Amino acid sequence: MERRPAQTHRPRGGSDIDTDTAELQNADLEEGPELREFYEQVTRSDLSPLWTQTSNVLTFHPRSKAVPHLWRWEALRALAERAGELVPVGRGGERRALALANPGLGGAPYATPTIWAAIQWLGGGETAPEHRHSQHAFRFVVEGEGVWTVVNGDPVAMRRGDFLLTPGWHFHGHHNDTDAPMAWIDGLDVPLSDYIDVGFFEYGSERVTDEASPATSRAERLWAYPGLRPLTQLEPQVSSPLAAYRWEHTDRALRQQLSLEDEGFPSTIEPGHAGIRYTNPTTGGDVLPTLRAELHRLRAGTTTTRRHEVGSSVWQVFDGSGTFVLGDERHQVGRGDLVVVPSWVAWSIEADSPLDCFRFSDAPVIERLGFARTHVVGS
Amino acid sequence: MERRPAQTHRPRGGSDIDTDTAELQNADLEEGPELREFYEQVTRSDLSPLWTQTSNVLTFHPRSKAVPHLWRWEALRALAERAGELVPVGRGGERRALALANPGLGGAPYATPTIWAAIQWLGGGETAPEHRHSQHAFRFVVEGEGVWTVVNGDPVAMRRGDFLLTPGWHFHGHHNDTDAPMAWIDGLDVPLSDYIDVGFFEYGSERVTDEASPATSRAERLWAYPGLRPLTQLEPQVSSPLAAYRWEHTDRALRQQLSLEDEGFPSTIEPGHAGIRYTNPTTGGDVLPTLRAELHRLRAGTTTTRRHEVGSSVWQVFDGSGTFVLGDERHQVGRGDLVVVPSWVAWSIEADSPLDCFRFSDAPVIERLGFARTHVVGS
Amino acid sequence: MERRPAQTHRPRGGSDIDTDTAELQNADLEEGPELREFYEQVTRSDLSPLWTQTSNVLTFHPRSKAVPHLWRWEALRALAERAGELVPVGRGGERRALALANPGLGGAPYATPTIWAAIQWLGGGETAPEHRHSQHAFRFVVEGEGVWTVVNGDPVAMRRGDFLLTPGWHFHGHHNDTDAPMAWIDGLDVPLSDYIDVGFFEYGSERVTDEASPATSRAERLWAYPGLRPLTQLEPQVSSPLAAYRWEHTDRALRQQLSLEDEGFPSTIEPGHAGIRYTNPTTGGDVLPTLRAELHRLRAGTTTTRRHEVGSSVWQVFDGSGTFVLGDERHQVGRGDLVVVPSWVAWSIEADSPLDCFRFSDAPVIERLGFARTHVVGS
Amino acid sequence: MERRPAQTHRPRGGSDIDTDTAELQNADLEEGPELREFYEQVTRSDLSPLWTQTSNVLTFHPRSKAVPHLWRWEALRALAERAGELVPVGRGGERRALALANPGLGGAPYATPTIWAAIQWLGGGETAPEHRHSQHAFRFVVEGEGVWTVVNGDPVAMRRGDFLLTPGWHFHGHHNDTDAPMAWIDGLDVPLSDYIDVGFFEYGSERVTDEASPATSRAERLWAYPGLRPLTQLEPQVSSPLAAYRWEHTDRALRQQLSLEDEGFPSTIEPGHAGIRYTNPTTGGDVLPTLRAELHRLRAGTTTTRRHEVGSSVWQVFDGSGTFVLGDERHQVGRGDLVVVPSWVAWSIEADSPLDCFRFSDAPVIERLGFARTHVVGS
Repeated sequence: MERRPAQTHRPRGGSDIDTDTAELQNADLEEGPELREFYEQVTRSDLSPLWTQTSNVLTFHPRSKAVPHLWRWEALRALAERAGELVPVGRGGERRALALANPGLGGAPYATPTIWAAIQWLGGGETAPEHRHSQHAFRFVVEGEGVWTVVNGDPVAMRRGDFLLTPGWHFHGHHNDTDAPMAWIDGLDVPLSDYIDVGFFEYGSERVTDEASPATSRAERLWAYPGLRPLTQLEPQVSSPLAAYRWEHTDRALRQQLSLEDEGFPSTIEPGHAGIRYTNPTTGGDVLPTLRAELHRLRAGTTTTRRHEVGSSVWQVFDGSGTFVLGDERHQVGRGDLVVVPSWVAWSIEADSPLDCFRFSDAPVIERLGFARTHVVGS
Repeated sequence: MERRPAQTHRPRGGSDIDTDTAELQNADLEEGPELREFYEQVTRSDLSPLWTQTSNVLTFHPRSKAVPHLWRWEALRALAERAGELVPVGRGGERRALALANPGLGGAPYATPTIWAAIQWLGGGETAPEHRHSQHAFRFVVEGEGVWTVVNGDPVAMRRGDFLLTPGWHFHGHHNDTDAPMAWIDGLDVPLSDYIDVGFFEYGSERVTDEASPATSRAERLWAYPGLRPLTQLEPQVSSPLAAYRWEHTDRALRQQLSLEDEGFPSTIEPGHAGIRYTNPTTGGDVLPTLRAELHRLRAGTTTTRRHEVGSSVWQVFDGSGTFVLGDERHQVGRGDLVVVPSWVAWSIEADSPLDCFRFSDAPVIERLGFARTHVVGS
Repeated sequence: MERRPAQTHRPRGGSDIDTDTAELQNADLEEGPELREFYEQVTRSDLSPLWTQTSNVLTFHPRSKAVPHLWRWEALRALAERAGELVPVGRGGERRALALANPGLGGAPYATPTIWAAIQWLGGGETAPEHRHSQHAFRFVVEGEGVWTVVNGDPVAMRRGDFLLTPGWHFHGHHNDTDAPMAWIDGLDVPLSDYIDVGFFEYGSERVTDEASPATSRAERLWAYPGLRPLTQLEPQVSSPLAAYRWEHTDRALRQQLSLEDEGFPSTIEPGHAGIRYTNPTTGGDVLPTLRAELHRLRAGTTTTRRHEVGSSVWQVFDGSGTFVLGDERHQVGRGDLVVVPSWVAWSIEADSPLDCFRFSDAPVIERLGFARTHVVGS
Repeated sequence: MERRPAQTHRPRGGSDIDTDTAELQNADLEEGPELREFYEQVTRSDLSPLWTQTSNVLTFHPRSKAVPHLWRWEALRALAERAGELVPVGRGGERRALALANPGLGGAPYATPTIWAAIQWLGGGETAPEHRHSQHAFRFVVEGEGVWTVVNGDPVAMRRGDFLLTPGWHFHGHHNDTDAPMAWIDGLDVPLSDYIDVGFFEYGSERVTDEASPATSRAERLWAYPGLRPLTQLEPQVSSPLAAYRWEHTDRALRQQLSLEDEGFPSTIEPGHAGIRYTNPTTGGDVLPTLRAELHRLRAGTTTTRRHEVGSSVWQVFDGSGTFVLGDERHQVGRGDLVVVPSWVAWSIEADSPLDCFRFSDAPVIERLGFARTHVVGS
């Protein structure tokens, strides 16, 4: 059924279109007074002609307005600390967070068109009040500890290397149980949710509803066992019920992949490149319906296969140093640094030292809507 | 597990927030020189504080920038006809289409943030050249006939009341086999695809690859039988393989629902309100991964239940007259008129005469991402 | 992960095992008094040793106790007619049906281990009373008309070529609205349901609850449109809601496949071999969770590819004549004749004339449990 | 559409049928010479009348030929030990296993119509040779250790409390790395696979292909982390890739459920009754397509809700003592004892001491085919 028509007439430019830079052709019309009047009437009628902007709405391949960009952890952290001095946290503003504003997106607080990424700062003893929203969120901790995020009343400790979930419409607040401040990364689907107009919001308690500081959340006590499911929760859930994915497990999984590789068993994505995806134990799929999260570990000296992918990602270096090659740019990175890869921009990573990178992306959106495509450079 | 925390501290405004108009509170800070300098530094660092724009990125309920709006068929048709006189169709521009430009969306050729809707005009004997793109498309015909849309080489006749598919990445062109012009409605997911950066495009033949004008497409000859599936195509397909849904079947299905209602059997959505959804016979789900389409028939005098829904819709009156009540506005409508309902705007329809309305929406997107919500007014 | 171990030690018989006839080896033990006493003790303890019957419970490939077999329609019909003279129909016995009893299954009324197939006879003016059961059923009509099967109160006309559904737990009775008797084929999952112990039963009305005799059932009035779904029924249903699949559509679908083949478009399973599967419009899958049904049409002179399949089938010739080659046997068949193909028995069909064959099988069971496998002979 | 017909005529027996004991009515015919001759002819024609055996093929509710039964671990173990003295293990017989032969199933080595359950015995230093089959298998260890089961070349240690998988068509052998014998329980879907004729078999190495005895299998090194998935294995798998579910995790999960109950959080099935299901991390569903496995923990003094369920189960007491109430029978049980619950037999458990019970069942079969039903006694 997928018969590709014989191309008796070649398109202008033919097979030698350089789709990396070429644009689709708009209509090439001499604009006399009649046409000018027509266009005015069209605009007055809340209409818009396709033929003058074909090249705006259709492109040979995805061309994001977002650009590849690097944010240094050091700079982020310093500004967040300064915010801690100048800006109180509480009802009104809700969170002391500084969002990555992609230079290509006109000042909007968006890392990419679909992804919100921010550093959040909570001073010693402070509390961020409870609320809930349709937007899905996670936290990832590159350094520090001492904050508990309380999700639907369940206090969840946050520690270096942990990946923590706040699925949509779950009440959540944070409280710092120590004297020292703590910073971490928030990831949300806010830009997408805003764009497609799906967001609801509700205020909750002005303090967290459970101020305990247990080492292990109730969600983990129910769910954090390999392959075991409580008999009280047998239905698939939209988002993962496992509130915390601890570094201890992530690290062990990655180490074992590299050990198995050493022993000659297939276990890595490519030589020297291990990786895990955080999943929803009720389905085996992504943790959130709109966000994917992974941890990649490269041996020193490894370079990943270079590829274009539909959909956008944010990477944070968890440990080590290396280089992100994004399109034509090279970014030298170290611990905590954040890098954005817009849709279809070629990317690869070179590890100078052993390198651990946390990645999150809008891949579940792209896949659920059937738009996923990957091109391996050189293949 | 979904314990809602006890609300010991009420949010400001408490339960008497009028969420129809209220906005979330931003931080209320006196902006001295230190803070000003801090904000400048934040901006220079490609960052953006959340606390100053909480009310922009989070809302009590969806508040689309798109607004409810009505376009008259008569006016659309006249402008399309004029375009037929002034603008050639062919490679370069590709299509003679006038897109609905929602007055709330700043001149973009978008009916809603996710939906493209346009009137397309093809003069007698004209051909729109072939191309393909990732974006999914359909056509709906409110009047006329004589054009064949050729989808992956299969000529599909277009006639009043027909609903026709061009799934993503299928080559397609149109040719008018008569001397008279023809107009129809195109629906696409272009705004969403552009926003999330997923679009690919390829030129095809400059003429359609099969100029035959059969009454029935090959797709229909394979697929247009109730509940029968060719043994050569047993896998689920992302988009419906049934290229055309003919008015004859749609009309009969709606008539039978109303007859069954008359005979006392449950068959209608609510009294006097029949409806069908166009579906993918390989899954029973929506015809396209990003677009839903339905035909609604109201008896004269019927008023539909009033409801808010997450996601946006476009309606076209196929026959009859009535009133769309959208938020606070009332729009009197007749044959061919197009109406846009943005996300969460309350809508209901009053039928003055027997009223047939075609509806399409981004509901598959909303549902696949888990954001669907409906509120029935008064419930 | 699917590393096949190196076979350092070859199994006895090695690669030259003729798995068509060979059996697995049981333990080869000299049975002295100690072992005999042990076996007695084992039996007394309600236990059973594996090593003495390895070859019974494990086989190189499926070896059904059911055998290939042919039943002549003429003979079936004559006995059914005789039953019509000797045996009343009504509460007590419930149905005047003669079931195919596979000669390999020891007299059980089973066509295969999973499938019940029977001829049912209803005299002029007779009624088979209503009841319901967990077991899923369908009817297929090779000749005659005049009976309405009433399914959950909906009278469904039965005519030559129609395929009719009675999903599990739907009340159903039949009434003959004419003076002439009528016969048809019933297919059910009774043997499987009995074996796995899942059946419930309930008596209903002693007459059908709606004695009307409409040409079209209410189920068809709601559902029998290509790709259209009533807005009142949007959830997937376990069984198809479309009570009747009419010959008119089946025949047209098959004719079109052969016409498309003539025109050079891919549309048939193999040259000269068209086929459709009856499907559930709410999912695109099989009509019933335990039974698959198809109609195959062969051009005169066509021979199908020979294949082994896991799972058992029953075929009924709807029209024409030909030969079923089942394992080593050849069965010449004509209109109405029924043929059983047990699991993994090689089958092919040779069409002497244009040949239409109805097929039903337990394929949904085999597929849902992950046991499907096919071997094409010569491949 | 699910209109239950008005019952103008009550079935004979009406609502006061005691469906626990009543049988459906067969036809009540006086059998004269004509009918006798007819029946003879029917039988000669490989047919079978329905009306004389309605009550055999249809029942008011499931009535398994299998009966509730108890096997004492002590007795099983003693016979298995004796088999160890009398019967060698190796190619020819393949395994030294004694299968539970349900007293209702005429001597077949079947615990229920769908489930094989056996004790397997492997002496010090012995090896059970490798083979593979379509049938799915697991092991559960109630005592002992020292055997490694090698699954597709991956040695998996077996220890008390562990649940171990051998999915269909995976090569597997076992070797005892110690001087002491070891016994464990095998569970397979052999009776179902035999009945529906789906089994393939292949001999493998006569010794295990990897004689190492690591504490942790490679499967666990890749998969045994809560919610983490290797990036090399992102597709759903029919059976769980996690070869071993260790007691340490199972025990901790159950303890935490009871602790959470103590703390006032919903976590148990009913007061004092904790439980986990072993699941496939690639789907969240059952570990095997045909078998479900769970571990239940009761506090001393707890009695479970009494229920009838479609489908059959086998229970093994892992620790503690109590009573199984199966239909009218009470079975006092202790460590290692095995109990069979056929389909629809009411069951409940009373815990005299803290009681841990392993349960496996054919529930995935019943659910995938849409036959699941539960009745809670007294509800």
